[in-house]
Amino acid sequence: MSASAHVGATLLRDAALVLTMDPALGEGPLGGLEHADVLMESGTITEVGAALRPPPDAKVVDVGGRLVLPGFVDAHTHLWQSAIRGRGSTLGFYGWFGACVWTAVPRIGPEDMYHFVRLSAADTLQSGTTTVVDWVPALDYPVSEAYVEAVADSGLRFAYAAYQELPDIELVSKVLRDLVESHALGTAQVATCVTREEPERVRAHAELARELGVVLNLHLLEDPTDRLDDPVSVLVESDALHPNTLLNHVIHVTEAELDTLAGNGAAVVHCPLSNMRLGTGVMPVEKMHRRGMRIGLGQDGGANDSGDMFASMKAAVGLHRAVSLNASAYPDPEQVLYMATMGGARAIGESERIGSITPGKRADVIVVEPRALNFAPRGDWTAQLVFNGRPENVTDVFVDGVRRKRGGELTGTDPARLVAGAEAAARRVWL
Amino acid sequence: MSASAHVGATLLRDAALVLTMDPALGEGPLGGLEHADVLMESGTITEVGAALRPPPDAKVVDVGGRLVLPGFVDAHTHLWQSAIRGRGSTLGFYGWFGACVWTAVPRIGPEDMYHFVRLSAADTLQSGTTTVVDWVPALDYPVSEAYVEAVADSGLRFAYAAYQELPDIELVSKVLRDLVESHALGTAQVATCVTREEPERVRAHAELARELGVVLNLHLLEDPTDRLDDPVSVLVESDALHPNTLLNHVIHVTEAELDTLAGNGAAVVHCPLSNMRLGTGVMPVEKMHRRGMRIGLGQDGGANDSGDMFASMKAAVGLHRAVSLNASAYPDPEQVLYMATMGGARAIGESERIGSITPGKRADVIVVEPRALNFAPRGDWTAQLVFNGRPENVTDVFVDGVRRKRGGELTGTDPARLVAGAEAAARRVWL
Repeated sequence: MSASAHVGATLLRDAALVLTMDPALGEGPLGGLEHADVLMESGTITEVGAALRPPPDAKVVDVGGRLVLPGFVDAHTHLWQSAIRGRGSTLGFYGWFGACVWTAVPRIGPEDMYHFVRLSAADTLQSGTTTVVDWVPALDYPVSEAYVEAVADSGLRFAYAAYQELPDIELVSKVLRDLVESHALGTAQVATCVTREEPERVRAHAELARELGVVLNLHLLEDPTDRLDDPVSVLVESDALHPNTLLNHVIHVTEAELDTLAGNGAAVVHCPLSNMRLGTGVMPVEKMHRRGMRIGLGQDGGANDSGDMFASMKAAVGLHRAVSLNASAYPDPEQVLYMATMGGARAIGESERIGSITPGKRADVIVVEPRALNFAPRGDWTAQLVFNGRPENVTDVFVDGVRRKRGGELTGTDPARLVAGAEAAARRVWL
Repeated sequence: MSASAHVGATLLRDAALVLTMDPALGEGPLGGLEHADVLMESGTITEVGAALRPPPDAKVVDVGGRLVLPGFVDAHTHLWQSAIRGRGSTLGFYGWFGACVWTAVPRIGPEDMYHFVRLSAADTLQSGTTTVVDWVPALDYPVSEAYVEAVADSGLRFAYAAYQELPDIELVSKVLRDLVESHALGTAQVATCVTREEPERVRAHAELARELGVVLNLHLLEDPTDRLDDPVSVLVESDALHPNTLLNHVIHVTEAELDTLAGNGAAVVHCPLSNMRLGTGVMPVEKMHRRGMRIGLGQDGGANDSGDMFASMKAAVGLHRAVSLNASAYPDPEQVLYMATMGGARAIGESERIGSITPGKRADVIVVEPRALNFAPRGDWTAQLVFNGRPENVTDVFVDGVRRKRGGELTGTDPARLVAGAEAAARRVWL
């Protein structure tokens, strides 16, 4: 909380529409309020409603005509992967992984890692995302330090899922304790991988996550060949399936396995643009929704290759419709907006703190301008956010009450400098 | 040619990469040239290459570090449909058509039509599209006049496919002759619909298109129920299938029908984001490509709901990969860039004039800035155009040699005024 204690009060005045994502606060499933204000004090949302009276020292921001909603929660990403943007463009998952991920990671030192993560974090923030959940591969301590520093410098809220092979598992605890949990906006998670050959790995990681009381974060059944590992059985045998388990992709899954995942209360993350880019398949997201599973939306970094959550929302809606020949398939625009905000917050167990514009929650809020060539005229703004919205329509971003984007520009950030840093890093890594 | 005869010479100097889309001019299937210049004179591309010497009066534009490519050809759209953005957001094709298209069109008078088309045209242009192919529903003459005026005022190159029911077929000729062909950037097409009940309609339209020597433009097998009309047989019986036939969507098609379409030389347009939005299905685009068919890429207006060709390219690549579980499925990034430029130009029979940066062609050229948070660092720029590109990365757009976007802003256009016009029109139409 230290970083936000000095944040003053801000009143967002007279939004045309606030989509609170809290049905208790407004109309419909997204809790919509027309002509409403949002008051943020010391990094906390304190009031939402019409014609609020701000404290005398509050900064008043006129958002007349604009839309206000919670910042997006990117529930699965790898910020370092700006290092591999555009690479391996016709390779499937394991081919891409070998040529890009596996090749790049060992070559990235602390300085270069800082540049890649800083670039992606700024791109993510400018696109309207306020929280990222980053599954981070095995890095040594200095590189981990640079990674966390870059995310922290961006101002994003972040969950950092640290991975190490078993001999280095102590490093997971050290990184999470010394680097992540010491940061006001950081949340610790333990990352794992599940294979049939090494059940002891996921067992140990699951045990560590339980000890620390944090989320266990893993990829599951992303590629068709992943079925050979029978990974759901391995998770069950390793006592690794519970409400604090976050499962990414989950494409090649049987009905019985879905029952098991849902029955154990695990949460899932849908990454449609990654699944499209790598040709890994179509997540059976409607079956998960029908089972009451918590579902978040993720970018998946360089497998996508962009930080644009509007693009992922549009893809999530359209992919399932095109495949099912059903234009009312789950998720519809309302459902995908929920997935991209409260869905992600619930999936990572943070729905008491973020995901909706509810008094008492942290002030993670974005402002969207609908009076734009790509967005107007007003028809159904909720659908337009999904079908028409683009990062350039996000005028303002607040994280923990701090204004990180103002009038369409990131504050305190020189994009040209970040780009130059990442370009130089990429030349060092790839030449 | 009248409008462009007074355009002076412009030299684009030292592009980091020119993707000419002409393999004869550069490397690979997209004819790439690093550190190259493009010279445009009197609206014509006159030279492409390194260190060109411009005529003394040429305006020199430094495009150092940036990418240059032909403007996109949106081979199927309906610009008026900004009127229905976001509406009918969970309806399938015929439900959406009734609730949105069918309801709106009769209510739109000339003034409102101008505003809707002007907004979409500006959005399309700012996104990097320089040519649109617009299938226009049956409108009376004054509304048609406003429609053409709005497209013309935007500066877009356009093919205007005019539709009328048979009793009003004379109006098609009149609109095309008096409004479209009189415009330097306008090309006439005849629009039709194919149903089993009214074969005489498509026969008459096909005859008119042949008389005028223009493209016959129609939707084919978009919705699964369209099979009931057996429309390919109707087209064959009506002598309406030939190289001047442009077929949009073509989703629910059999192998035998594909043979017929390809055998008759017809061209197709893929509209993936529309097919996703309306849940109409997945076009078998790889089968068409294997048959050597000409394939363009289209936005399909309010069925999408955006004018962003980058989003459509990304969707076209990803949709087929996700469905086929094959990351090297057609189209790959190179193929979809071709589809979005030369593919569209070839599909509408305009490849001698547009679609590539080839000396002698009209100067329809865009400039893209890769040094952006969402695009950098350089990995594979061709793939990054597709996976990372966004309209905001398009800094400059030239149509027929005229600079319509400069430094990220449309020239001679006040977006706020266009938005206000469309908002007022939408209130009149929908309230």
